[in-house]
Amino acid sequence: MQKPRIALDMDEVIADVQPKFIALFEEAFGWRPDPEQYRGGKIYDLPGTEKLREALHLKGFFADLPVMPDSQEVVRELMADFDIYIVTAAMEFRASFEDKYDWLAQHFPFIHWRNIIFCGDKSVIRAEYMIDDHVRNLRTFEGKGLLYTASHNLAEEAFTRVNDWAEVRAFFAEEKRRLA
Amino acid sequence: MQKPRIALDMDEVIADVQPKFIALFEEAFGWRPDPEQYRGGKIYDLPGTEKLREALHLKGFFADLPVMPDSQEVVRELMADFDIYIVTAAMEFRASFEDKYDWLAQHFPFIHWRNIIFCGDKSVIRAEYMIDDHVRNLRTFEGKGLLYTASHNLAEEAFTRVNDWAEVRAFFAEEKRRLA
Repeated sequence: MQKPRIALDMDEVIADVQPKFIALFEEAFGWRPDPEQYRGGKIYDLPGTEKLREALHLKGFFADLPVMPDSQEVVRELMADFDIYIVTAAMEFRASFEDKYDWLAQHFPFIHWRNIIFCGDKSVIRAEYMIDDHVRNLRTFEGKGLLYTASHNLAEEAFTRVNDWAEVRAFFAEEKRRLA
Repeated sequence: MQKPRIALDMDEVIADVQPKFIALFEEAFGWRPDPEQYRGGKIYDLPGTEKLREALHLKGFFADLPVMPDSQEVVRELMADFDIYIVTAAMEFRASFEDKYDWLAQHFPFIHWRNIIFCGDKSVIRAEYMIDDHVRNLRTFEGKGLLYTASHNLAEEAFTRVNDWAEVRAFFAEEKRRLA
């Protein structure tokens, strides 16, 4: 029998983009932004910092992002009962393709290339679950959407929230019981 | 209202891979294979030619493929009534990502990056229609699958067949009437 599918986002869900933007901000402006300052948005939403976002187009940006704590272990566990598909909106960033592919091979070698998707608009994805930090991706999704907490989505209330990978594990343990 | 979505394959549907493999075959063996010889399979399915397939992993392989006749014009026309998503199983070929992206930008500049998907297994794609030369992709698809004729699928009878882009145009003209 086919396992239920989980469409799993990369950035800010399994790969931590934040430390790099904090470092870029500090490099550019000489001080460290306080999380309260960019609460509800991204660091490069702060006035005068829009140029920071351009770093996303540089080769290497996505190559050395830290792995979100516990994500490797929990993904590996979930694979016993769910089909995991990595679904990342890479298509805006031509320079990111090989970096993202290599990052996955390095940190999630147990995910087959058949289960990796680089896309733009995620409305074209068919799965039972989606874990994403962007409500725009969950809104067009037909399955159950889980909002992975990030600074820019703290005020959102429309989706089941997961704050870390321990909560992802707990959510799917409950789903597994429910489906059994 | 949302337009019906068409998931459109690249290789052997809008990009012609065949001439390159014929040339590689001729280069390796000194003679040109007859289409009858690889009927029902791919050129590199012929005994002793398996190594030819490795060319798919080389940078540049997908960069200069010829465009399938009429595909640009028909895709542009279809966009008035359908959302076109390019869905290509690029993920097996790390070296193909940038080539495929650039090829699309060059030959199909009217397709937005939001509508491009590099994937592996296509069972995770949600759309109303899929045009593909591989029955394995159509088999897991929930919408209406169209089999684009290629040497390796000539014996298949399970799906509506389209032999060229004029037939694609005619099929969707009929669908448009039906849906109106």
